[in-house]
Amino acid sequence: MLGEILETTRKVNPLVHCMVNLVTANDCANLVLACGASPIMAEDAEEAAQVAAGCGGVVLNLGTPSPRKIQALLLAGRAARQQGKPVIFDPVGAGCSELRRNGARSILEQVRPSVIRGNASEIRTLLRGTMATRGVDADTIPEEPGTLAVELARRTGAVVVISGDVDIVTNGKDSYRVRNGHPMMKSVTGTGCQMSVLIGAYAAANPDRLLQAVLAGVCGYGLCGELAFRRLGSLDGNAAYRSYIIDAAYHLTGEALENGANYEIF
Amino acid sequence: MLGEILETTRKVNPLVHCMVNLVTANDCANLVLACGASPIMAEDAEEAAQVAAGCGGVVLNLGTPSPRKIQALLLAGRAARQQGKPVIFDPVGAGCSELRRNGARSILEQVRPSVIRGNASEIRTLLRGTMATRGVDADTIPEEPGTLAVELARRTGAVVVISGDVDIVTNGKDSYRVRNGHPMMKSVTGTGCQMSVLIGAYAAANPDRLLQAVLAGVCGYGLCGELAFRRLGSLDGNAAYRSYIIDAAYHLTGEALENGANYEIF
Amino acid sequence: MLGEILETTRKVNPLVHCMVNLVTANDCANLVLACGASPIMAEDAEEAAQVAAGCGGVVLNLGTPSPRKIQALLLAGRAARQQGKPVIFDPVGAGCSELRRNGARSILEQVRPSVIRGNASEIRTLLRGTMATRGVDADTIPEEPGTLAVELARRTGAVVVISGDVDIVTNGKDSYRVRNGHPMMKSVTGTGCQMSVLIGAYAAANPDRLLQAVLAGVCGYGLCGELAFRRLGSLDGNAAYRSYIIDAAYHLTGEALENGANYEIF
Repeated sequence: MLGEILETTRKVNPLVHCMVNLVTANDCANLVLACGASPIMAEDAEEAAQVAAGCGGVVLNLGTPSPRKIQALLLAGRAARQQGKPVIFDPVGAGCSELRRNGARSILEQVRPSVIRGNASEIRTLLRGTMATRGVDADTIPEEPGTLAVELARRTGAVVVISGDVDIVTNGKDSYRVRNGHPMMKSVTGTGCQMSVLIGAYAAANPDRLLQAVLAGVCGYGLCGELAFRRLGSLDGNAAYRSYIIDAAYHLTGEALENGANYEIF
Repeated sequence: MLGEILETTRKVNPLVHCMVNLVTANDCANLVLACGASPIMAEDAEEAAQVAAGCGGVVLNLGTPSPRKIQALLLAGRAARQQGKPVIFDPVGAGCSELRRNGARSILEQVRPSVIRGNASEIRTLLRGTMATRGVDADTIPEEPGTLAVELARRTGAVVVISGDVDIVTNGKDSYRVRNGHPMMKSVTGTGCQMSVLIGAYAAANPDRLLQAVLAGVCGYGLCGELAFRRLGSLDGNAAYRSYIIDAAYHLTGEALENGANYEIF
Repeated sequence: MLGEILETTRKVNPLVHCMVNLVTANDCANLVLACGASPIMAEDAEEAAQVAAGCGGVVLNLGTPSPRKIQALLLAGRAARQQGKPVIFDPVGAGCSELRRNGARSILEQVRPSVIRGNASEIRTLLRGTMATRGVDADTIPEEPGTLAVELARRTGAVVVISGDVDIVTNGKDSYRVRNGHPMMKSVTGTGCQMSVLIGAYAAANPDRLLQAVLAGVCGYGLCGELAFRRLGSLDGNAAYRSYIIDAAYHLTGEALENGANYEIF
């Protein structure tokens, strides 16, 4: 099942509009190419909607934001949603400034993303924002990642991913725990951004199987981290690891994903 | 002949003002260093002309544009041309938004670039824009890349490069087909941008032999793609390939370029 | 002594706000991770001060500037200094435009950085600016790097680093010459930026031993360049070298730094 998602992506070769950030743009573009899709990068409000309209899916990443970039994220996100195309939202560092908190809230309200992927702290910030606008006491935000993800999925209608030692994938009804990945991935910048664009590529090629596409992205990227780790020599560090992860995605087959995906329903 | 272009570049060590984009800036800078030139990156309208004035050549790349960046491209391009320095224009994704179409048209009209390098679709967009301003029917745009490149070269006075399975280099009078390169280069982001900055470095060091400098850049970059491909191990993917291409440029000698260049006059 | 600086950094895992540039952001982030710290990148005036306030230290890099980015550098720098946190200033290309010259002067005056790191030409530009505002004749600027660094340190109160074949580290009273590093580091883009963020990480984790933290950063980064050079194979070029330097930082231990640091008092 997950293997088909990957194979369809290589066959369809979807255009993915990746609005990422200045730290990880290059890695994200190469990862999108590695998985068989084609990246387009465009970050300005003046062209964001037009570019998004020509793509199979859009990834909105909140990293290195400016007011103008957030405007562009909103325009691209809305344009894609109006055409029924998947929009993946990655709320990078959502809690670290007013600019990001307000930007994240606007994206949730005005774009209604199809998928949201972040770490537990970022997802908690989103849920707090959602609840605050409804006058709900923030103390009731769940601690446990599974419950947290399900809660945000129910409130937003999105498929929600929480990345961590164990990843959570849920649409609020069907929920998975994913045990792929390796702790050393934390020592490479932008692994979260990369997982988000992989999800974006898989979703753009498989819009009618959104939950499976997301699950394939989460398992697949974690699996690349595992395969890359095995390849490390004694002098290799996080820079080598960074390249090996993308190389693993380049060689990943449907069969390897099918066999290596490590998830359970909860 | 082409070998001399490379050797002069290593000897002269020209400063090249690379206005690229947030996806490929790092790779472009390292490629410029690999070929023996020195990159300067500056993208803001407030300093673009001053920086350009201090360099041997300028590369104007239309990727990840904003209205302010396009203003900066125009200022830098005009400053360099007023001093008779080579200006290379890379119309990345020229057809994908109004912002880019209009920006490309302004650059052609106001800067009159010395060299234009793009894929067939981008060059077609430029030619359509040039003809539209003259009220010519767009249906008459040639399909065949060689004819297309010659047409744009004649209308703009620039040396035109079309990248593809076979590359075209022409000044409208003398024309070459280049058969260097490898299909896997498409799986690395920014190979077009990198070819453009290599051309920029060669042109900056050899401004009086512009057509040869461009031909050397096209053959040389393709040759690096071939050499890098031979180095790939079974686990290497597009991330390793990306590094190997730059490493190949670092080691490329005039003799190797002379022997490896694969072109014919047409 | 220097080994402790490194070990404390791995233990404390400080957050470092890296305001770098679009060419080197990814390498800087991975180097900060390699040395055991955590990078945050934020470049817009609207969030710069808030992000800086949440970090252990801030690096202000003048590369690819815009008026808005310089405003952000000033806001972040002042916010960090008000909290007594170390601020590292890297005046990339300070002399190449009015925008950079004026930006550098504003940062010196309004932020009063704890550390300044640049090459001799950049440091000379800063000193000229400082003296000009006091009506001093610019011809009296010292040529010799050691004297130059001491002069700027005395005028600004900062620890000053001049990178070159031999590096200088001085607080105006205690001064060191560092003989780590390798000439091939010049062929990798952003090695200066990377040294600055390594200093930033060490300083953030060791704010009470600022001079030692800076010395550890200068020796440590140079040592990584030496270790990486030894690892180069015959086909490896500057792209491989770039990764090997970061990999070396990932594996660098306190003991290796202690033994490999090559400096003398002057």
